[in-house]
Amino acid sequence: MASPHRVVIVGGGFGGLAAAQWLYRAPVEVTLIDRRNFHLFQPLLYQVATGGLSPANIAAPLRGILSRQRNCRVLLGDVDGFDLAGKRVLLDDGDSVPYDSLIVAAGASHAYFGHPEWEPLAPGLKTVEDATVIRRRVLGAFEQAERTTDPAERQALMTFVVVGGGATGVELAGAVAELARHTLRHDFRSIQTPQARVLLLEGQDRVLSAFPPKLSAKALRALERLGVTVRLNTLVTEVAADHVTVKAGGAVETIACRTILWGAGVQGSPLGAKLAAAAGATTDRAGRVVVNADCSVGTYGDVFVIGDLANYPHQGGKALPGVAAVACQQGNYVANQIWRRILGRSKQPFRYRDLGSLATIGRANAVADFGWLQFSGFPAWLAWLFIHLVLLVEFQSRVLVLIQWAFNYFTRGRSARLITGEEEHATHKPSPSP
Amino acid sequence: MASPHRVVIVGGGFGGLAAAQWLYRAPVEVTLIDRRNFHLFQPLLYQVATGGLSPANIAAPLRGILSRQRNCRVLLGDVDGFDLAGKRVLLDDGDSVPYDSLIVAAGASHAYFGHPEWEPLAPGLKTVEDATVIRRRVLGAFEQAERTTDPAERQALMTFVVVGGGATGVELAGAVAELARHTLRHDFRSIQTPQARVLLLEGQDRVLSAFPPKLSAKALRALERLGVTVRLNTLVTEVAADHVTVKAGGAVETIACRTILWGAGVQGSPLGAKLAAAAGATTDRAGRVVVNADCSVGTYGDVFVIGDLANYPHQGGKALPGVAAVACQQGNYVANQIWRRILGRSKQPFRYRDLGSLATIGRANAVADFGWLQFSGFPAWLAWLFIHLVLLVEFQSRVLVLIQWAFNYFTRGRSARLITGEEEHATHKPSPSP
Repeated sequence: MASPHRVVIVGGGFGGLAAAQWLYRAPVEVTLIDRRNFHLFQPLLYQVATGGLSPANIAAPLRGILSRQRNCRVLLGDVDGFDLAGKRVLLDDGDSVPYDSLIVAAGASHAYFGHPEWEPLAPGLKTVEDATVIRRRVLGAFEQAERTTDPAERQALMTFVVVGGGATGVELAGAVAELARHTLRHDFRSIQTPQARVLLLEGQDRVLSAFPPKLSAKALRALERLGVTVRLNTLVTEVAADHVTVKAGGAVETIACRTILWGAGVQGSPLGAKLAAAAGATTDRAGRVVVNADCSVGTYGDVFVIGDLANYPHQGGKALPGVAAVACQQGNYVANQIWRRILGRSKQPFRYRDLGSLATIGRANAVADFGWLQFSGFPAWLAWLFIHLVLLVEFQSRVLVLIQWAFNYFTRGRSARLITGEEEHATHKPSPSP
Repeated sequence: MASPHRVVIVGGGFGGLAAAQWLYRAPVEVTLIDRRNFHLFQPLLYQVATGGLSPANIAAPLRGILSRQRNCRVLLGDVDGFDLAGKRVLLDDGDSVPYDSLIVAAGASHAYFGHPEWEPLAPGLKTVEDATVIRRRVLGAFEQAERTTDPAERQALMTFVVVGGGATGVELAGAVAELARHTLRHDFRSIQTPQARVLLLEGQDRVLSAFPPKLSAKALRALERLGVTVRLNTLVTEVAADHVTVKAGGAVETIACRTILWGAGVQGSPLGAKLAAAAGATTDRAGRVVVNADCSVGTYGDVFVIGDLANYPHQGGKALPGVAAVACQQGNYVANQIWRRILGRSKQPFRYRDLGSLATIGRANAVADFGWLQFSGFPAWLAWLFIHLVLLVEFQSRVLVLIQWAFNYFTRGRSARLITGEEEHATHKPSPSP
């Protein structure tokens, strides 16, 4: 008997996990490699960052999800590169894993527009650790504001700048404003937390630019009602520990602040560039691999890139958006093609079905775009709530998240507002003036 | 009008929080100083360490708990010492806080018997970060065991040593055994997690020595049924990254292992020694302050030490145990005496009322000692469950913990088994052989 076809999947996000699970009954041996031992439900990460949920509520152990799938093993490891000729995935500890088909779903992080030195000053929101850092900085700023006696210092500590008006930035800004206006309202004695300033900076002329303009306008009004100051057509030109400098039109302005959160740009995992170089494919400016129409890479028909790391330009001309739905559909598609090839069946084309987009703003407001139907406000928020609950991987998480949302909704509380982990004295000190 | 009496409380654990809340309607100004922004329900910390609960389930923001208590402010800060003559608490950032009455409830950590260098190798279980470290090491050891091909290395990785047979050690050992035997059973492909060895080392001749001998014997049998190997009369003489050396009777043995957890000894906060030196009081061998019969210190009638940091020898001759009930009763008592003094009323004596002890062993087993009534097994576990749920500070936590326990009970799952935070490569590598 021939040994079974070996499918190696790099990354246990939406795309990688979908591919692994699609192969549940396939005559293959699946190896899912991830640096982390859990799948993270990133769309709710901003709620962890703002103390509404715990990390475990939106993360599920990969081994747990796949424990009954006997043809799949999980390997906790760091992928360092690829030997496409030898058909091996190279790990950073010197080990390598042989494959017959390879699916790379290593994801993306935020882009700092050529300023990687901004990253420690303005953390993005991609990992559980990022969420903990943001939670610590936001809550820590209020704590420091409570203690300082210098009005200018207090003003800077109570200024929160969110860079990027996409879904992540809008959701973060809305949640920070809620925190300041309602949750923390009675917690402090020297400061009035509702007086905190939350600024959302967006380079384009509207927020949520992936949505229709009408919904962008509704989101803008909702943000303003929450107390968020939205600055459109505004570019960040400098990020420092104690200020950001922005350019809007011809005017340059420096905003004193201590907490800067980053929700802008996309930067594909470095594995994308390594793979593209090895396969003779190209990467786009964001470091994403430009894939073939079947998600394969260069001339390698058995190597696929899916999800946020892929630039899929074969539908509508521009890259498909970096959202969970694209990753899942690509994961299912690629897994199915591998299976069909084993069975000797012909290849099918990939076609992304846009099932709609949702973004939430604060406690009971959202915008929904289902193409044929666009709506906003409380109904959109209910749709958002329902869909996110259904998509959570584990039944237990659904129950726990639902209960916490109910508490948060009715009490406006956020019980997970813990400051944990190591302190970062270095990044909190203002930089010396020039 | 005279300014109100200022009560400063150092530490927001059981004792400090009880004192602050007792003064709810008192004509005083309370300042509660803590390094952390939350109160931690330590009795359930071992469940966070073994992935059964999330940190936020057993922690409640101090500001949230006290937000409606208008005479109390919370100060997030690190206390460095005391100026008893000037009646000020000194903070590490140079600030100081004046008091009229001072309550120090800074708690204790584990003692490493004069070997502080063992601490990074064998983490104790006192903080949320400790719990995350232990979770990462235990789960990480199974992950490494899955990948290694060296049988001796695998055996060492799957050996878990718990030092100390008190409640913490017994609960940790039971939970790790449950994790290996049931929760992780189907998660790995190369290792059989039920074959993991869990060793519990105790220097005395029985576990849970604070309980009656009959219950110690029951706990021992329950641990053995869970697969824990209990070694009594066994002293740890060396802790290293890849082994522990133990002495039992005359025999010395080296046990190869990669995960060592510490649940032994008590070491009072360093603030105890500073306070005792300033007040002319003494500390015991564990660094706890030997207090007067009214919990005051030395000749200072307005300075009190309560909880784990206090050695209270005036009832039964030996120090009261370091448990939440003692801390709470002392907190209430001291707060009440301060209030009585303000009202010009006479002092009352302190008397600890022992309401009983409980310790749990694994999934549905516990021992209960209420003095007049001792029992074990499932009924004791139900009592343990009920009492811990009631004692949790927040209603929301009670609901969330109950649901997670129900899931854990019926599915034997532990959904919070996430490996998060920074990796610690240094401490995981075996030390070079001599």
